[in-house]
Amino acid sequence: MRTKWIIALAICLNACVATPIRGTGDLGLIIERDVGRVKIIDTSANKKLATINGLGDLSHASVVFSRDGRYGYVFGRDGGLTKVDLLKQSVEKRVLQAGNSIGGAISQNGRYVATQNYTPGGIKVFDANTLQLVADIPATYGDGQLSKVVGLVDAPGNQFVFSLFDAGEIWVADVTNPAKPEIQKFPAGKQPYDGLITPDGRHYIAGLFGEDGLALLDLWHPEQGVKRILDGYGRGEEKLPVYKMPHLRGWAVAGTRAYLPAIGHHELLVVDTQSWKEVGRIPVAGQPVFAITRPDGRQVWVNFAFPDNGYVQIISTESQQIIKTLQPGRAVLHMEFTPRGEAAWVSSRDDNHVTIYDTQTLQAVTEFPASAPSGIFFTHRAGKIGF
Amino acid sequence: MRTKWIIALAICLNACVATPIRGTGDLGLIIERDVGRVKIIDTSANKKLATINGLGDLSHASVVFSRDGRYGYVFGRDGGLTKVDLLKQSVEKRVLQAGNSIGGAISQNGRYVATQNYTPGGIKVFDANTLQLVADIPATYGDGQLSKVVGLVDAPGNQFVFSLFDAGEIWVADVTNPAKPEIQKFPAGKQPYDGLITPDGRHYIAGLFGEDGLALLDLWHPEQGVKRILDGYGRGEEKLPVYKMPHLRGWAVAGTRAYLPAIGHHELLVVDTQSWKEVGRIPVAGQPVFAITRPDGRQVWVNFAFPDNGYVQIISTESQQIIKTLQPGRAVLHMEFTPRGEAAWVSSRDDNHVTIYDTQTLQAVTEFPASAPSGIFFTHRAGKIGF
Repeated sequence: MRTKWIIALAICLNACVATPIRGTGDLGLIIERDVGRVKIIDTSANKKLATINGLGDLSHASVVFSRDGRYGYVFGRDGGLTKVDLLKQSVEKRVLQAGNSIGGAISQNGRYVATQNYTPGGIKVFDANTLQLVADIPATYGDGQLSKVVGLVDAPGNQFVFSLFDAGEIWVADVTNPAKPEIQKFPAGKQPYDGLITPDGRHYIAGLFGEDGLALLDLWHPEQGVKRILDGYGRGEEKLPVYKMPHLRGWAVAGTRAYLPAIGHHELLVVDTQSWKEVGRIPVAGQPVFAITRPDGRQVWVNFAFPDNGYVQIISTESQQIIKTLQPGRAVLHMEFTPRGEAAWVSSRDDNHVTIYDTQTLQAVTEFPASAPSGIFFTHRAGKIGF
Repeated sequence: MRTKWIIALAICLNACVATPIRGTGDLGLIIERDVGRVKIIDTSANKKLATINGLGDLSHASVVFSRDGRYGYVFGRDGGLTKVDLLKQSVEKRVLQAGNSIGGAISQNGRYVATQNYTPGGIKVFDANTLQLVADIPATYGDGQLSKVVGLVDAPGNQFVFSLFDAGEIWVADVTNPAKPEIQKFPAGKQPYDGLITPDGRHYIAGLFGEDGLALLDLWHPEQGVKRILDGYGRGEEKLPVYKMPHLRGWAVAGTRAYLPAIGHHELLVVDTQSWKEVGRIPVAGQPVFAITRPDGRQVWVNFAFPDNGYVQIISTESQQIIKTLQPGRAVLHMEFTPRGEAAWVSSRDDNHVTIYDTQTLQAVTEFPASAPSGIFFTHRAGKIGF
């Protein structure tokens, strides 16, 4: 009898100790790309809470969060979709859902997680609780071929929007009823290679590898089809060697302006988001990769491709001038702001550390070790369209 | 011996049962104004989780959240500041910090909670963890008189911005070091009665009871002082009986436009946020109280003063037309959107219920009882400047 009590107590104590009661609004995940791990971090205490192993190939990994902020869905390059419990600090579920995958998204209502796959080409939609497959949408075109899928984002109305690299199309899938997804297809141009959605969830933009310019779809008016914008931005007219294709979702939008990496040039393009015309260029230290807006829109932080990837430059959106150049470490891969923007976390892959900056003083506050850190993702993304 | 085990087990089981392990990103609080209670709610399950008693006079109550989303700070009319633990579902701490109070704010870094007080006039700053007083800033003016304080908001840089009704001033207090708050004072005009900050945290605007127009302070350029905008908006030129002074923080900002209640008129004013000039008016069903933007900026939801307070009207920001009129119940006091905007929660005081709408179909999804519900506050406010 006493043994039973002890076992019961042990189970309960274990549950109590293993899962401290705490909020999830100040948590996040950092990818350790070389070792298939993620770190759970705390942006109030500025420290690491735990390290979770066994997530497979994280060489091009990204994360979305459940709407309660408890779970991170980690999309691995190897097709692995791993649901990490940030409170129990463990892997809740993991499925290998494709052979070659490149990211994912979560629906507006938080019920569905979608992955975008190169092989087999298409998207798959999973129940966010169980990771059970609820919809398989192959990216078929031509004579039954399958296209690689890129640029997957969520949009209001429980829509997923994505681009078909080989088919040259943009698809909009409404998964309100995942048993019968409603799909609209739009010709986009040659070889869309990435996509982004504006912070309001209205405009979807795909970059075109096969021709100049970008493809713009106004999701408030899909009947108007895709428009071409920013001719000269694309990869077709290759003026300089491009060391790393910039992520389109690395565009910064602040007020009525977007700041985007000029492909192959040491410049940021400044674009008016009403007309989608270029209105200026800002010279920077290298080929920009990510341009990210501080949450109040007063600064844009930029990192760079090799060989200038040891710098981060900070631009004032008011003066359009660089106000500071930071050197966080070698191979800066990603930056993430805390929800209200008082701090920025920066990963330096080749120096194996993450640096936390005060965005007011622009001084480093602290630094901690991580193994080849790449993407940094905070749970407040759960509440933001397109994240 | 066995008794000890049973007690230990009981304590642990109690802890386990009382505080379920869960995320906090989908939680919120609803004020039950007549009975001094708050309800803890879950926006994923669309239901009430718990009711917390003993919060005093909640007749003009508001809430801010800790940066981890676990705690709600409830500001009561009687000067009560109550820290509610949304996970343990209990009052963590409560202080009576003034005789007559009218809301509060939390600093950008989440460390300080401030209250704005009528009696004694001023703001008080508390440690967000302990609720210990860390700064007392009396609103002194003239011959040592104390002014009522209104329109308190947080701004980037750990600033609190607020207006002095009797002194006719706007103050900006930097509490980065709360032992030595740095205070800047600006003449604002006669009798500022409420204030708001734009979503980017740049512009602070105070309404003036004693004259026409509004007072605008650009926090990026405080050296330029206060400018007068929107002459004719103020309360000075009283054309119609005003049944309820609209909350300034009920302004909706979508894209480059702000939608604001026209005082005393059955209209929303449309204002360009670059020039701060009026660019249009939208006729509505009554005197507007709150105008709130759906997170994607595509709709503005408006409620009204007596006798039209049984309606909510939904305006398309694209067409500037009313697309639907809802009748959620009698005396609609407040509305809150879920973080990504798929749902809106609406409180009907005199029908004692809260109605949840699908913002896509504009149909009611469900409804639940609450005692004279007023303000509805979701935890994602923790990540938003000015909330």
